[in-house]
Amino acid sequence: MTTIGIGLVGYKFMGKAHSNAYRQVNAFFPDTPKAHMIAIAGRNEDAVAEAAETFGWESWTTDYHDLLANPEIDVIDVSTPGHLHHTVVMEAFAAGKNVFCEKPLANTLAEAAEMVQAWKAAGTVGMINFNYRKVPAVILARQIIESGRIGEIRSFRGSYLQDWLRDPNATMGWRLQKEFAGSGALGDIGAHITDLAHMLVGPITSVTGMLRTAIPQRPLESDPTQMGDVTVDDWTGFLATFANGATGVFEASRLATGRRNHNAFEINGSKGSIAFNLERMNELEVYFDDDAPDVRGFRTILVTEGVHPYVNRWWPSGHIIGWEHTHVHQVHDLLVGVAEGVSPAPSFADGFRCQAVLDAVERSAASGRWETPVALPE
Amino acid sequence: MTTIGIGLVGYKFMGKAHSNAYRQVNAFFPDTPKAHMIAIAGRNEDAVAEAAETFGWESWTTDYHDLLANPEIDVIDVSTPGHLHHTVVMEAFAAGKNVFCEKPLANTLAEAAEMVQAWKAAGTVGMINFNYRKVPAVILARQIIESGRIGEIRSFRGSYLQDWLRDPNATMGWRLQKEFAGSGALGDIGAHITDLAHMLVGPITSVTGMLRTAIPQRPLESDPTQMGDVTVDDWTGFLATFANGATGVFEASRLATGRRNHNAFEINGSKGSIAFNLERMNELEVYFDDDAPDVRGFRTILVTEGVHPYVNRWWPSGHIIGWEHTHVHQVHDLLVGVAEGVSPAPSFADGFRCQAVLDAVERSAASGRWETPVALPE
Amino acid sequence: MTTIGIGLVGYKFMGKAHSNAYRQVNAFFPDTPKAHMIAIAGRNEDAVAEAAETFGWESWTTDYHDLLANPEIDVIDVSTPGHLHHTVVMEAFAAGKNVFCEKPLANTLAEAAEMVQAWKAAGTVGMINFNYRKVPAVILARQIIESGRIGEIRSFRGSYLQDWLRDPNATMGWRLQKEFAGSGALGDIGAHITDLAHMLVGPITSVTGMLRTAIPQRPLESDPTQMGDVTVDDWTGFLATFANGATGVFEASRLATGRRNHNAFEINGSKGSIAFNLERMNELEVYFDDDAPDVRGFRTILVTEGVHPYVNRWWPSGHIIGWEHTHVHQVHDLLVGVAEGVSPAPSFADGFRCQAVLDAVERSAASGRWETPVALPE
Amino acid sequence: MTTIGIGLVGYKFMGKAHSNAYRQVNAFFPDTPKAHMIAIAGRNEDAVAEAAETFGWESWTTDYHDLLANPEIDVIDVSTPGHLHHTVVMEAFAAGKNVFCEKPLANTLAEAAEMVQAWKAAGTVGMINFNYRKVPAVILARQIIESGRIGEIRSFRGSYLQDWLRDPNATMGWRLQKEFAGSGALGDIGAHITDLAHMLVGPITSVTGMLRTAIPQRPLESDPTQMGDVTVDDWTGFLATFANGATGVFEASRLATGRRNHNAFEINGSKGSIAFNLERMNELEVYFDDDAPDVRGFRTILVTEGVHPYVNRWWPSGHIIGWEHTHVHQVHDLLVGVAEGVSPAPSFADGFRCQAVLDAVERSAASGRWETPVALPE
Repeated sequence: MTTIGIGLVGYKFMGKAHSNAYRQVNAFFPDTPKAHMIAIAGRNEDAVAEAAETFGWESWTTDYHDLLANPEIDVIDVSTPGHLHHTVVMEAFAAGKNVFCEKPLANTLAEAAEMVQAWKAAGTVGMINFNYRKVPAVILARQIIESGRIGEIRSFRGSYLQDWLRDPNATMGWRLQKEFAGSGALGDIGAHITDLAHMLVGPITSVTGMLRTAIPQRPLESDPTQMGDVTVDDWTGFLATFANGATGVFEASRLATGRRNHNAFEINGSKGSIAFNLERMNELEVYFDDDAPDVRGFRTILVTEGVHPYVNRWWPSGHIIGWEHTHVHQVHDLLVGVAEGVSPAPSFADGFRCQAVLDAVERSAASGRWETPVALPE
Repeated sequence: MTTIGIGLVGYKFMGKAHSNAYRQVNAFFPDTPKAHMIAIAGRNEDAVAEAAETFGWESWTTDYHDLLANPEIDVIDVSTPGHLHHTVVMEAFAAGKNVFCEKPLANTLAEAAEMVQAWKAAGTVGMINFNYRKVPAVILARQIIESGRIGEIRSFRGSYLQDWLRDPNATMGWRLQKEFAGSGALGDIGAHITDLAHMLVGPITSVTGMLRTAIPQRPLESDPTQMGDVTVDDWTGFLATFANGATGVFEASRLATGRRNHNAFEINGSKGSIAFNLERMNELEVYFDDDAPDVRGFRTILVTEGVHPYVNRWWPSGHIIGWEHTHVHQVHDLLVGVAEGVSPAPSFADGFRCQAVLDAVERSAASGRWETPVALPE
Repeated sequence: MTTIGIGLVGYKFMGKAHSNAYRQVNAFFPDTPKAHMIAIAGRNEDAVAEAAETFGWESWTTDYHDLLANPEIDVIDVSTPGHLHHTVVMEAFAAGKNVFCEKPLANTLAEAAEMVQAWKAAGTVGMINFNYRKVPAVILARQIIESGRIGEIRSFRGSYLQDWLRDPNATMGWRLQKEFAGSGALGDIGAHITDLAHMLVGPITSVTGMLRTAIPQRPLESDPTQMGDVTVDDWTGFLATFANGATGVFEASRLATGRRNHNAFEINGSKGSIAFNLERMNELEVYFDDDAPDVRGFRTILVTEGVHPYVNRWWPSGHIIGWEHTHVHQVHDLLVGVAEGVSPAPSFADGFRCQAVLDAVERSAASGRWETPVALPE
Repeated sequence: MTTIGIGLVGYKFMGKAHSNAYRQVNAFFPDTPKAHMIAIAGRNEDAVAEAAETFGWESWTTDYHDLLANPEIDVIDVSTPGHLHHTVVMEAFAAGKNVFCEKPLANTLAEAAEMVQAWKAAGTVGMINFNYRKVPAVILARQIIESGRIGEIRSFRGSYLQDWLRDPNATMGWRLQKEFAGSGALGDIGAHITDLAHMLVGPITSVTGMLRTAIPQRPLESDPTQMGDVTVDDWTGFLATFANGATGVFEASRLATGRRNHNAFEINGSKGSIAFNLERMNELEVYFDDDAPDVRGFRTILVTEGVHPYVNRWWPSGHIIGWEHTHVHQVHDLLVGVAEGVSPAPSFADGFRCQAVLDAVERSAASGRWETPVALPE
C-alpha cells in the first residue's frame, strides 16, 4: 500500500479539521493510500507543539520551510489564514510538492492566477478544500442532476447564513480585516455556495452584486477598549447567469441571527428540484415531476444508505455522519489523487473559477453593473 | 336540483362549524343537493336567536321538538353535548328523520346500541361526524393503502395530543364531567384516532389500555372559588390488535403542553409508510420502498392538487384549506347520501364500532387485561 | 348596523375568492358592517349568471357600468385581469365609489399614478388586495418587529415560487401576455413579496434585477396547434436596498418545479429572526437571541391562538384556517374602512409603491444598473 | 496524565464504533485520561488481525482470556453478541478488571443479576453502552427537565423505528435468534428507549405489552435456500407507569418501512415539552409554556453551541457531529470514571433496571396483564 507523507501548515480551526481527517481516513478507507502525518508547522512554538501532540503529528516545527525541505513529505497542506496562501503555495509547488490548500485560493485574483500557473508548471496535484463538495447528499444531488432526473436546470438559489458576528461587541479577528482575509462573508462562505453552484450547475458567466458592512467598527482583539475599522463585508448578495442559461440568486451573511451554519441551496429543473441545508447535511430534498400525480412531493432522503457516496465505509443505514467527515472524504480523494498523479476536484482550476466570481462580485459592487468573471489563465 | 331541509340542535362550537358547512357547501359544490338551513334549536333564547342570525338560519326555536315536527326538515343535526345525543337521536329516527350526529355516538355503549337499532329500524340516513375522515390527505392515505402501494399494513400508531387542559386553573366545563361527556380525552379525541384507524386499517379486535386523570380537581364554572372533582380521564393510552394482523399504539391527551391539535398517525406497511398530522392537514408524508434505492425518502405531498379528493372544488394548486372545510366535505357527503337514501361513511355503524373500542378500553383500564370490543348489534 | 353595498367586476379565480369573503365575513365578524352582495358584472352572460347563483349575488349584469350607476352600491370590487383595472377604477372613482382593486394596481406605472390621483381626488376608500398582508402569521411578524423584539432589521429575503407554468405545453392564457398582464412572475407574485417587504421592513430605495422567459413560446389557447410568443417573464430576481439600511434579495418564479405556492420570506434582525412560508400559512418561525443560551432556536408558532390577529373569530386553538380566509380578513378591513371613511392598508398608495418597485426592476433589467423606484405622486 | 489500558472483545459493528471512540477521544478531550488501545480479541484470526490493523489496536488475539491476563489492560470492553456478555463479564470482574459492556446487559434477567452482583463484588467500574445517553441534545433534555423548566413530567412517548428487516428475504443473523440475541426489537432498540426513559423520567414501575413477529421465517445465512424460524420479536409495544406518576407509551420496530434509525421521544410536562429524534440528533425541540403568549411554539435548538454538553470540544457553532460521537462521549466518561474509580452512568445498575423492564414486558406479553419490573439485587 502506498504511503503519502503529509506536512500541515496551520493548527487552528482548519488545522484541527484536517488533522482529524488524516488520522481517520484509513480506519474507514483501509484500501486508500495511507496518510502519514509527518509534521505540522506553526509560528507559536507552544501551540504547535501541543497541536502535534493532540492531533497526532509525528513532529512539529515553527518554520514551514522545514516541511518543504523534507523529502518524505509529499503533500503540503496549507491551512493558514488567506493572506499566507499565496506565499506558501508558490514555494510548495516550486519545491515540487503536491498542495492541498484551504479556500479561498488567495486574497486576490492576481495571486490566484499565479498559483494556478505554478500548479500547472509543477505538474503535481493541486486541490482546494471546498469540503462541502464531499457531503454525500451534495454528491447525490450531482448524480441526480447528471442522470437527467430533474431535467434542464433553470434556477439555482443559494444562501450561506451564519450569525457568529451578529454581536457588535465580538472582537475583530483576522477574518474581519481585508489584508488578512481578502473579503468577508463573500470569500469565507459565499465562496462555498459559489463553488457548489459551479459543481452542480456549471460555470457562472455574469454577476451583479452588493456588499455590506452593517457593523463597521469592532473592539480590537489586542485592546477591546479600542475600536477598529472592519474592512470586509459582513453580508453579500448577488444575481448570476450560468453558461447553461440558468439563473442564480446568492446570499451570504454572518449576521443572520439564529442561523448557525445554514449553507442551503435549491435547484429547480424542468422535471424536478433539489434542496439541501448543511445544518441537516445527512438529508437531501428531492422532487420528481414524473412521480404519479397524486403522490408528488419533496422527498426527504436520509443519505445514509450503502448506495450513497462514501456512506458504505461508515455506519449502517440511518447512522448519521458529521461535519468533520466531509474533510475525511476530501482527504480520501486527495490521497487517491496524489497516488495517481491526478488533481481531484475541486482542483486549483476550480479554486480559480470560484475566486473569479468573487472578484466579479466585488467589481460589480463597485461599479453597480453586471460584471464577467475572468477566465482561467491558459 | 334536490333541496334538503336541515334542522340543527346546538349552537356552540360544533353548531358554528356545522352551520358554516351548510352555508358554504353549495357555493363550492353547486351540483350537490342544496342545503336549506331551516331552523336551529337551543335552550337559551337569546343565544339561539343570535346564532340563527349570525350563522344564517331562517328560524330558531328553544324546543328541538319543533324541528322533529317540521315536515320540511329532512335532516336533524345533533350537535349537543354527548349526554343528549341518545334522546334526540332516538326521537329523530322515530320521527322518520335522517340524522347527522356529532361524535361520539353516545355516552355509553348501551345507548349507542339502541341508536344503531333505531337507525336500522327507521331506514333513514344515519351519519356520525368523524370529520377527519374528510380531510383530503386522509382520503389520499386510504386511496394509497387500497391501491396496495404500501403493501400489507403492519402497524398503526396514532396520537391525538391537545393541551387546552394543561392549566389546573382551567374551570370544569361539561367535557370534564362523566354524566355529560361520557369520558374525557378517550371519547373526545381518542375517538377520532380510533375511527381513523378503523377507516385506514380495519377493525380493531382487542385492546389493553390505561386512563389517567392527572388533574383530579378543578374550579367550578359556577363558582371558581370552589373545587369540583374531574370525573373523566385527561389522558389515555392503549395497545390494539387489528383483524388483519396489524398492531396499534394509541394515545390521547389534553395535557400535552405545546401540542394544540396534534391528531397524528403513522402507518407502516410492507412496501411503504404514511404519516399525517392535523396541524399540517394539507400535507401527507408518504414513503414507497419501490422508489429507486438512492432516492428513497418520505415525500411531503401538498394535498392541494386537482387530482386530490374534493380539492378541485376549492382553489388552485398550493392554496390550502382549513379545518372548517372538513365539515363542508362531511356535509357534502351527507347531502348526497340523503338524496340517494344511503348512509355515507362514517355511518352509525361506524360510530358504534368506534364506541365499542372506547368501551373496551375503559373495561381494560378497570380489569388490567386485554378486552374485546362488543360486536355491532344485528 | 351599517350595511355596505358591494358590486363585483369579475367572476373567475379572484371573483370566486372575493365573493366567498363577502359571504363569510359577517358570520365570523358579526359586529363588522354588513356586506350586501348586490351585483356581479362580467362579459359572458351565462357565466356571470351562474356565478351570481353559485356565489350568492343578488343580481348580475354584463355591463359593469350598471354597478357604477347603482346608488346602493358603495364599493366597486375590481377583480378583472390587470389591463382593465385602470379603466374601471378611474370610472368608479369618478362615480364617487369606494374601490377595492386586485393587484397589481395597473399594468403600467403611469396608469397607477393616475389611479392614485383619482383616488385622492375622490376622497373615497381605495384599497388594493394584497391579501397576504392579512395572514395572521404575517401580522404577527409585523407585531414582533414593531415591538423591537428582533431588533434592527438587517436583511430580508423573499421568494415566491410556483410551478404551474413548468410544463412547456401549458397554453398561453392572458397572464402570459404583456398587454393583458403587464408582466409575468414579477407583477403576479413578485408583487406580493415586494408588498410584504414594504409592510414588514419599509420602503425599498433601489433595485437591480433580471427578468427571464425560459419558455418563450407556448400553444395558443384558441388553437393549441399554433405557438405564440410569451411576452412576459416567467422568472425574476432582484437585489434591493431599504430606506432603513436593510438589504433585500427577491425572487419570483412560475417554473420552480415542486413549489406550489411557496411565498416565503426570512427577516434577520440584530436580536432575532422571522421566517414564513405560505404553504404553511398557519405557522411562523421566530428566533430570539435573548432566549437563554442553551435553548435558543427557531420557534414554530402555530398562529391559531386567541391572542393572534383575527384568530379569535374563527376556531379554537390548533384549528387551522385556509388561504381563502385571508380574503375574509381583507374584506373585513375594507368594510370597517368604508364605514369609517378611511382607506385601510394596503391602500392605493401602497399599491403604487409596490408598482414603482416593479417598474424599477423592469428598468434595471433593461439597463443592467441599479434603479430607483418613482416616488408616490403628490 | 493517567493512561488506561483497553482490551476489546468483538470487532464487528460495535467493535468498529468503540475502536473509533478510543482512537478519537484524546484528540478532542486531551485532558482526559489517555486511552491506550492495547489489544483486540475475536475468534476469526484473519478478521481480528485486519481489525487490529485498521482500527488501530497494538495487538490482537483469538482468545479473550489473553486480555484478562494482561496486567496492563484496565478495561475489558465487551462488544460481542448478547449471549456472550455474561461469560466474559463474569470473568472480567473476577479478574479485577473494569468492564464496559454493550447493551443489553445480558440475554436473561438472571444473568444480568449475577453480573450486577459480580460488579459490586469486584468494586471496579461497570458501565453499559447506552450511547444515546451521550447525545448532547439528550443531555440538554435532561438538564432542562432537572432545572424544572418544563415542570412536572406527565407523559413520555418513545418509539424506536428501524426498517432493516422489512424485507422477508433478509437472511437470519444472530440478532434474529433468541439463543444469541435474547430478544429482538425489544432488547436491541426497545432497550434504548427504555433506558432513555429511565434517564429522563425516572423508574418504570409497571408495564403491559405485546410482542410480535410479523415475518416468522427467513432464509438461513448458511444456506439461503432453506428457511429457519425467527425466534425473536420484530415489533413490540408497551404501556408503562413511572414512579413519579407519569405515563409512558413505547414502541420498537424493525419493520417500520422508511424509518432508518428513528429513535424518537416526546416528553410532556406541566410547563413545557421536549421532543427528540436520533435521525436529527443535533437538534432538540423544546416548548416552554411561560414564553409570551403570542410567540409560544416548539423551538428547534441546534445543539451545537459551546454551552451545550461536550460540544465545545468539537467544532464551532452549527457544525454538526455524527452518530459515532456518542461513543466518544461514552468512552470519555468511561475513562474519567476508571481514573476516579467511580462507575459513570449508565452503570451496570442502569443496565439491570433496563433489563428488568424488558423482562416485565416479556412476562406481560405472555400473561396479558400488567407486570412489575424486578428490583435491582441488593
